[in-house]
Order: sequence, then structure tokens, then C-alpha cells
Amino acid sequence: MASRPIALLTDFGHHDPFVGICHGVILREDPEIPIIDLTHGIARQDVRAGAVALLDAVPFLPDDAVVVGVVDPGVGSDRHALAVESADGMVFVGPDNGLLTPAIEARGGAAAAFEISHSPWRLEPVSDTFHGRDIFSPVAAKIAAGSAVVESGVAIDHDDLVALALPQATVIDGALTAAVLAVDDYGNARLAATPTDLGPLEPGQPIEIATDDMRRQAVYVKTYAEDAGGGPLLLVDSTGSLSISVGGGDAAKQLRLEPGKIVRILRA
Amino acid sequence: MASRPIALLTDFGHHDPFVGICHGVILREDPEIPIIDLTHGIARQDVRAGAVALLDAVPFLPDDAVVVGVVDPGVGSDRHALAVESADGMVFVGPDNGLLTPAIEARGGAAAAFEISHSPWRLEPVSDTFHGRDIFSPVAAKIAAGSAVVESGVAIDHDDLVALALPQATVIDGALTAAVLAVDDYGNARLAATPTDLGPLEPGQPIEIATDDMRRQAVYVKTYAEDAGGGPLLLVDSTGSLSISVGGGDAAKQLRLEPGKIVRILRA
Amino acid sequence: MASRPIALLTDFGHHDPFVGICHGVILREDPEIPIIDLTHGIARQDVRAGAVALLDAVPFLPDDAVVVGVVDPGVGSDRHALAVESADGMVFVGPDNGLLTPAIEARGGAAAAFEISHSPWRLEPVSDTFHGRDIFSPVAAKIAAGSAVVESGVAIDHDDLVALALPQATVIDGALTAAVLAVDDYGNARLAATPTDLGPLEPGQPIEIATDDMRRQAVYVKTYAEDAGGGPLLLVDSTGSLSISVGGGDAAKQLRLEPGKIVRILRA
Repeated sequence: MASRPIALLTDFGHHDPFVGICHGVILREDPEIPIIDLTHGIARQDVRAGAVALLDAVPFLPDDAVVVGVVDPGVGSDRHALAVESADGMVFVGPDNGLLTPAIEARGGAAAAFEISHSPWRLEPVSDTFHGRDIFSPVAAKIAAGSAVVESGVAIDHDDLVALALPQATVIDGALTAAVLAVDDYGNARLAATPTDLGPLEPGQPIEIATDDMRRQAVYVKTYAEDAGGGPLLLVDSTGSLSISVGGGDAAKQLRLEPGKIVRILRA
Repeated sequence: MASRPIALLTDFGHHDPFVGICHGVILREDPEIPIIDLTHGIARQDVRAGAVALLDAVPFLPDDAVVVGVVDPGVGSDRHALAVESADGMVFVGPDNGLLTPAIEARGGAAAAFEISHSPWRLEPVSDTFHGRDIFSPVAAKIAAGSAVVESGVAIDHDDLVALALPQATVIDGALTAAVLAVDDYGNARLAATPTDLGPLEPGQPIEIATDDMRRQAVYVKTYAEDAGGGPLLLVDSTGSLSISVGGGDAAKQLRLEPGKIVRILRA
Repeated sequence: MASRPIALLTDFGHHDPFVGICHGVILREDPEIPIIDLTHGIARQDVRAGAVALLDAVPFLPDDAVVVGVVDPGVGSDRHALAVESADGMVFVGPDNGLLTPAIEARGGAAAAFEISHSPWRLEPVSDTFHGRDIFSPVAAKIAAGSAVVESGVAIDHDDLVALALPQATVIDGALTAAVLAVDDYGNARLAATPTDLGPLEPGQPIEIATDDMRRQAVYVKTYAEDAGGGPLLLVDSTGSLSISVGGGDAAKQLRLEPGKIVRILRA
């Protein structure tokens, strides 16, 4: 049987060999496991940013993927370490801090969950600071190489997994209020809102974008290429979310948007 | 038949999961496709920098590679999306904005070109902002897995591809005038010129380097290790181009060199 | 016979296609070679930082790995280029500048060494500036694909390899003096010292950390999660070294620690 692919997401960055060491641990178990590096550039210890990135990625992964997420400020504490099988058979491995939960929900919810802190497959001695290397990678590698998830650890109630509530949009009198969910490398600010929240909008429609320290005229467009003279744009991004952009510029910097900041959007 | 390798070059950076999502789309089609990440660190929307990097890379790729380039400021507009087969059988997939053209020329020119915006292999629904995920990756994956390029889209005249003119050096009275083509992470400034443009030079030969705001004595050397007291060096870099360097330092910062800036080189 | 995996560590960064070109050269030789990118984020030309990262990584690589290290300020000079087989059969390829030596020692020392500057497997013409592409990658690829190391070049005395002395800790009157060996992306400052150097310490033990421009109260803890009110922490990191950390903060910035700086640690 072919090995299952492993998809890795961490906040390890690319300065140190942490990611490479995890690859080593995985390929030492089975050199034919395909590895997908989803990203290792999550802001450090930002569990929510990691959860959003995983949520965006899982619809595009092979259905038999073993997803490993490591954004883990509680490493070495008594937080659980998890292997979770989703209703549609994808496996998720990582800390029980909410990082994996939205992605698991997107794959139909948890069907089975295991506490793997003392997994028979972990590397001994387990460090107090690098469970990516000592627990998550070797457990994922065993599963990717064909071992059953049920053998990874001790079964726990999957209703007890730590949840992570992503912010929701509200609409009052036609004005949309939503939090910035993430800012990407281009400076586009993605809102926790979809076009449905705002109701029908025609391309070219003028709108107003406001925060507690900024108020700007903007325009609703379909693509980044429809630059309206350098002003702010509102569009639907590749995740299906409303996103604020500036053609050829950095919307987050210009409009002082950052994750968690509340934005109001009104028809102008 | 073994899968063809896919070589990816983008301006996506490593902060977001965009690159990882493209890997997911590719390996979902065929988990045995080898993927080469050429670089995802192209300055955003800098089509010329991406074209130069592709040009540097293609001589060293497997001959059956499927090259995917995504630096795409016009995504979502009516610019064409391309799959191009070169005269020597390499395949190039990406936007029709000049990004792919110099690399295609280096592989013998285009032998066949297809418009793939409505490819049968694209992911539905196609977003207006992420064709790397929805068009370029799935089309490249199908070709890498063995499908014929001719089935990827609608045949177009390969003479109509958008061209990208890279700057050329000029020599007048023994003085070379050339644009900075690229600056690498070490601060080395590569010129759009080769040693042939400058004529015979002996290692150790003193020269003068000038721009509109700088004039410096320098020396022609064979390797970065021949540091002449910390002053500027002119040498032939790994692409065969003339390049300005500072031993152990950052030439671009010290001499205020950036892509597009015009440099004159004279025998001192 | 399956291909051996290649593990790559360089200071090439992710801005340019240098890493991708090395992958191309390797997969052109054999598309089934698994490649592990240990890291390409070593500070440029910092041979010691590269050596420490390789030392950390080699215990976790497949035992048949071919390790390629390229941090090479002397490229193009008369420094040797090496292929070294360790006592336990791992192969190391790179410049003879000390980069590989600590990792080779960790795998039982050198059993055989070859000078590969004129290897029959190198790419012609060899550039003076990019031996990663022209010598190290193609030689490693041939070995990974099954060729014997002994055919890679000219046998040399493995006692003549350039050594790299990592700093050692000293203990006088119960006070530990040690150099900062490395600072990671989280700002944790790893010392060239192990818990054995300091003697028995209980979690919660107050200690004092001092440099020539700083003196701070700190506490010895087991994990990053045991934040003692935001003050400095001393703990054993994932490499088994003593490391100075600040819970949720950047210890290196706050305490002005950088590689090479001398730190004294006393029981408070």
C-alpha cells in the first residue's frame, strides 16, 4: 500500500533546522512518504492564525492526508497531544489547543480521538520543548506508513477537544461589522465575513470602510487588477471571505488593519 | 510511466499556506509527482525578477519538467493563462505576462501554446484571485501525471505570447553601460552584461564603477574570496553575468544599486 | 535499490532560486531521491551556525542519508571540496572549512575522505561562485543514486580535515561560564553548556544570569510554558543544552545576547 502524504504546518520559521529535523524523523520511518509543507511562517505561538491557515488548506489536500499542526505555546505543560480521525478519514496530529479544531470540523468533525503524549511511537527521551520532533512527527509517520490511528495512543472523548471560536460577522441596519481574521504577505486584510453577510453587491459599488481610527471610501471589485486609482478595494478572496485590498499596495499598513481589529462596512 | 517533476516559482512568500495549497492540489492528482520549489521569494508582482529567476533555473531542471510560474498582477483580468511546450519538450504553465517567455526562449522557443483559462482540468469554482491553486497547479499536475498538453486548453498562436524584453548592455569607447538585472540575498548586483561585452580582463585589473550618484574604484576578480581590502569587486557570477560584489559585505546597500539602475564600468 | 535521501543545509535563503536549482540538479540525476531541506536560513557565511545546525539535525536523519552542507565563504579559492563517509555510513558533502566536522564526529568520526573539486561527476564548466550547484549537488546525487563514495574524487587523509572548535563551558566555584552558541527564531539563546556542567538544579530554583552589560534574576524551569512573571528562564532545550528564554518574549533582544557572547550563571 502506498504511504499516505503528511501535510505540515508550524510556526518554526526557516532560520533553524526544526522543520528539516521533522522531515528527517518522518523519512527515517518511511522514505516514500510525500511531505507537503503547508507553511512554517505562522506568527509564533499564534494558534488562531495557524487554525485559519489549516482551515484554508484542508479542502485542497489529498483525502488520505495526515495533517500535522504545531503551534504550541503549551508544549511541555499538561495539555493533551492528539491524533484525531475526522468523519471523512483525514487524520490530524498536534496539540489540543484549538489549532486543529476548525479544520477537523471542515472535514465532518471528529470521529475518533486519541491522547498520544505517551504514544508507543514517540521518540525517547521526549524533550519538554520539541514535541514536533519527539511526538507529532513520529506518530504521524507511523500512521502515514500504514499503522492504525487507534494504536497511536489512548482513546479519549472527542467532545472534550479544546475548541477555538473564530469571530463571526454581524449585520445591523445594513452595516456589516466583522473582525480582521488574518493579514497575508501582500497586506490584504481578510475579514471574518462572506459576501452573503453583506448582501448583493455589484462590481463598482462604492462602499465605506471604517475602524475606530480610520474611515475611507472604497469600491467593491471582483479582482485585484481592478485598481480604482489606488484607493481601498473590497473583494471576495480565494477562501470565499471578504477581504480589503489596495491595488499594488499594502492595505493593512495603509489602513492600520491587524488581526482582531473590528471593521465596519457600509454601502456609501 | 513515471510522473514528470513539477518546478514551482511564485511570489507567494512563506507566511501564508498558498504554496502548500498548490502542493496539495498537485499531490491530490498524483502523490508521486516530484515537486521542486525553485523559489517563492520573488518580490511580489515583480514579473521581471521572476522571469530572470526562471531563466537562471531552467538549464538545471530535468528535461521533462513541467515549470509553473506564478507572478501574476493581472490575475482575474482577461490576461491569458498558458500551457506552452518548448521546442525541446519542457512544459511551461502560468500567466501570459512575459514571466515565462525568456525561459521558453532558452529551451528553444515555443513549439505549441494553449489558452487554459477554461481548461477541463481546472478546479471549479475558479476564484478571481488564486489561479495558482485553481488553474495552474491542477493543469500542471495533469500534464505531470501523463496527460497530453494538447488537451489542456485551446490552441493559440505561439507568436502571440506576451514578450518580456530584458535590458541589453552597450559599449561605447570601451565603457560598458548596463542595467542592474537583479540583486541577490547576499547583496550582489548582477548586471545585464557578460564578460564578452567588456572585452578581455585580467584578474587584478583595476576598474571604475559609476552610477548617477556614485563613483568607486574596484577590481576585477575571479571569486568572492579574493577580497581586495573590502572595496567593490567585479566578477563573473554563476549565471555567466558580470556582477558587482563586496567581499563579506552588501554591495547593493553600499553602492545604492537596485534592479533597473544604470551602471557604467570603465578600465581605470 | 532505493535511492538514499539527501539532506541539504545552506545559507542561500529563499529569495533567489539557488536552493531550487540544487534540487533540479539532484532530481535530474534521479527523480526518486527524497530531499530533506534542513534549513537554508543560516546567517550568510556563518560557518559555525551551520555546523551547530547540522550537529543538531544528524541524530534525526535516516541512517543512509547523504548530507550536503554549503556555507562556503571560500568558494572559488583553493579550499578543498569534500565527500566524507562517517564511521556509521552516513555521507557528508561540502566545503572543507569545519562546517561538516562536528556532525561527522557525532556520527562516529570520518572513516574515509575524498577531495571532489575535480570529481568526474561535477557539472562542466564549474563556476567559481556556485559549487553547491556545480560540485556538491551532482556528487551527492550520484552517491544517493547508488554510486560508491570512493569514486567521487581523490582519497585524502581524513585527519587533515579542517576542524571547528565549538566553545566549551567552564565552572569555577559553582559559577558556570559559557558562550552563547546560537539564537533561534523565538529569541531563545542556547548556551554551549549542558545541565551536567551546572550540577543538580530543581525546577523553580532561582538563579542569576549575567553578561558584561547585564545582570538579571531568573528561574530554572522545565518548559517554556512555566512563565515566571515574564522574567528570564533557564531550561534544557531540545538539543540537551542549557538555554535562556523569556516566556512569550524574545530573550536575545531583552538581554542583549548574541552568538559568542559570554554568559555567567550562578545559583542566586
